[in-house]
Amino acid sequence: MQLFFSDHINDNEVILDKVESHHCIHVLRKIKGDIITVIDGKGSFIEAEIVHANAKQVTAQIKSIIKEEITPPHLHIAIAPTKNMERFEWFLEKATELGIAEITPIICRHSERRNLNEERCNKILLSAIKQSGKAMLPKLNNLIQFEKFIKEAKAQNKFIAHCYPSEKSTLNAALNGNDILIAIGPEGDFNLAEVDLAKQNGFKDLSLGKSRLRRETAGLYVCAVLNASAQ
Amino acid sequence: MQLFFSDHINDNEVILDKVESHHCIHVLRKIKGDIITVIDGKGSFIEAEIVHANAKQVTAQIKSIIKEEITPPHLHIAIAPTKNMERFEWFLEKATELGIAEITPIICRHSERRNLNEERCNKILLSAIKQSGKAMLPKLNNLIQFEKFIKEAKAQNKFIAHCYPSEKSTLNAALNGNDILIAIGPEGDFNLAEVDLAKQNGFKDLSLGKSRLRRETAGLYVCAVLNASAQ
Repeated sequence: MQLFFSDHINDNEVILDKVESHHCIHVLRKIKGDIITVIDGKGSFIEAEIVHANAKQVTAQIKSIIKEEITPPHLHIAIAPTKNMERFEWFLEKATELGIAEITPIICRHSERRNLNEERCNKILLSAIKQSGKAMLPKLNNLIQFEKFIKEAKAQNKFIAHCYPSEKSTLNAALNGNDILIAIGPEGDFNLAEVDLAKQNGFKDLSLGKSRLRRETAGLYVCAVLNASAQ
Repeated sequence: MQLFFSDHINDNEVILDKVESHHCIHVLRKIKGDIITVIDGKGSFIEAEIVHANAKQVTAQIKSIIKEEITPPHLHIAIAPTKNMERFEWFLEKATELGIAEITPIICRHSERRNLNEERCNKILLSAIKQSGKAMLPKLNNLIQFEKFIKEAKAQNKFIAHCYPSEKSTLNAALNGNDILIAIGPEGDFNLAEVDLAKQNGFKDLSLGKSRLRRETAGLYVCAVLNASAQ
């Protein structure tokens, strides 16, 4: 099913922006009277009938609204973006397919990447929900320093995944909760001071198993296991 | 830890091929007397001392051999390669990181890709085990027609993942067994005749959950959930 996105929605009608309108009229050849499905990124599938088939601005009249069934728990991953941007963008796409709710890019002591094109990242998230038939857009927070993030982080169940020896929760055990936040460090891991700071702020130690995983694989791994446990 | 690969190993010594030798001598500046760790792709980490530091052919004397601890179950995924080769290569890398044992690329009725560069695929698998510190190279079988594969497939627990309505096993239930084979179709799914043929040959219906996943994500999803269940 072809989905369009719009953030211009009122009680009666939906307006598509220039890019979506062009795709709707020029690429998909939709005309006045056609029914399209629009997502708002907030969990609604909106069936609407095109009333103005303008290639620069499509207007459609709302016929019905269906709310997406969201299966808890809420998963929030804080992760240090990889040096290779392609790998981080790949994580964004896959995590979205697997139903992640919130992503916070963090800057750690060992981070190789300290900047991020958030607009490009949001485009990837948007195309991923459209491709995977979802109506809820994951929340991408701004890039933030690890220390600041850890001190402000609010979640019922907070975990920090690292490779230092300690008594660690397994991923399956960690994902039993509801409101879950998991912090994943950069290549080269968090440093010990960062792990200590997290634990002082209520984070528990988490093991992602025996396999040595790339950062983006670790993030995807968490999303996949949570998705499966919620089925 | 830097790993080298060799398939020229006898009781006493290891010989590195031209590519590995160049990397060892010219890139990593190893010299006679240095200890290197070599993997054989069959589950052994071999500690060896360089006796001939030749940039075209390094010879090293075996000091000790450590067998990799393999956690069952044995996972074999039969999957239709994606049209976009990058996505399939990405699957190969991630599945290897997560410990897949065997991969069979299959050609289905709806397949968009009917050829595969197996040499390139094997290079990706090899670099993935070296990067993730593994000694066991996943077995990549030759590209094969779906019908032929299904009729010859031998595994204790065989599943076919598809989107047609039926009584399906969940992934977590499917992964309880030991010797597991999961068939994943192309974009556009298997056709009904293919699903029927698989079931006639002992495959059970499998659901990969409610999310609409790209093919390569579906394959990775299976690897991740099995990896977590084996921890």
